[in-house]
Amino acid sequence: MPTIKFYLREGLLPAGELTSPNQAHYGDEHVRRLHLIRALTDVGGLPLASVGKVVEAVEDRGRPVHDLLGAAASTVDPDVAPDTDPVNGERARALVEELIARRGWQVPASHPAARALAATAASLLAVGHGDYLDDLDEFAAAAERIAGADLSFVARGRSTEDMVERVVVGTVLGDAMLAALRRLAQSDSSARRYPLPSAPDREAAETSSDKNS
Amino acid sequence: MPTIKFYLREGLLPAGELTSPNQAHYGDEHVRRLHLIRALTDVGGLPLASVGKVVEAVEDRGRPVHDLLGAAASTVDPDVAPDTDPVNGERARALVEELIARRGWQVPASHPAARALAATAASLLAVGHGDYLDDLDEFAAAAERIAGADLSFVARGRSTEDMVERVVVGTVLGDAMLAALRRLAQSDSSARRYPLPSAPDREAAETSSDKNS
Repeated sequence: MPTIKFYLREGLLPAGELTSPNQAHYGDEHVRRLHLIRALTDVGGLPLASVGKVVEAVEDRGRPVHDLLGAAASTVDPDVAPDTDPVNGERARALVEELIARRGWQVPASHPAARALAATAASLLAVGHGDYLDDLDEFAAAAERIAGADLSFVARGRSTEDMVERVVVGTVLGDAMLAALRRLAQSDSSARRYPLPSAPDREAAETSSDKNS
Repeated sequence: MPTIKFYLREGLLPAGELTSPNQAHYGDEHVRRLHLIRALTDVGGLPLASVGKVVEAVEDRGRPVHDLLGAAASTVDPDVAPDTDPVNGERARALVEELIARRGWQVPASHPAARALAATAASLLAVGHGDYLDDLDEFAAAAERIAGADLSFVARGRSTEDMVERVVVGTVLGDAMLAALRRLAQSDSSARRYPLPSAPDREAAETSSDKNS
């Protein structure tokens, strides 16, 4: 684990207040910043160069909050792979634009996540499973519910650093948490739809076939 | 892209019906199987050995549907990283068990996704952001909504192969789709909570306040 000295040298932590020629005092601000750096590297898996950009954004006090949160979120998202088939790509982009308009989402059509969504939709069309997109509004409604809780979590941050940290932690660990919750809910849904022929069920089936014979 | 001959040699595709010494006829079943193999390798990114296991599961006609879908889903999920801190791990496992009981989910506590969820919860506790878990039921409710649409998509499959293919496609591309939808909904939620002080926005705000006056 890199030391505080290393972060100081890289310009990620502000210098402490010198209390003697070779002693410095580090206050609450340093603790908050250290938390942020650790979250970005350990949870977000960000390289130090990206951590530097986030720290810079945090230090720009004139930056609007929405803009800062967007910058923090974008550091942990990979670039979108380009779509291969222009026909599917065009159809997918139209689907996403229509969805954004229908939901009344205040996001530009050029938002990286809009492009990521279009790329995924194009893949679904390409593999012949475009009907997964029939339920796009159902998925979008669920996403709105999740985003509402996400934003409340961010808003509970006690400082700009803490809010940015919450964006990164929520984005990275949130994806993993939601993937796990989705699988549990799917397994429950599948168990109800396709009950396993358990021992009592099998006995019941045998009894009923006895009756029919 | 591997050829049909290659899949035949690997035992992933059943042999065609010989119509002459060096010609074979391939029917609908072959087309379905080929679709499945392509989905598993191209979308799921599965190695051929795993594809072989899925094909084997599909061919086991006596296998219950719920069990088959579970097997298909598990092939595309990575193994869970072990938790580091036993105290957080214990607390996280308890949180997950309580959640499963509260939602009435018919899933074993040993379900891989339950372990994945506990590992993520332990990470959130470890980085000091356990309050993200305060909204666990809100996230779980959203996951149930998503899982309902997922299962309907799987149920629309026209054959066992098609259903398994839908599980894999839905699991892999669904995660990417939901991550993108979540980010768009977050961006919308953030724009509403923290409006940007831009010129057009101010004009729009003035216009709407004119309307209201």
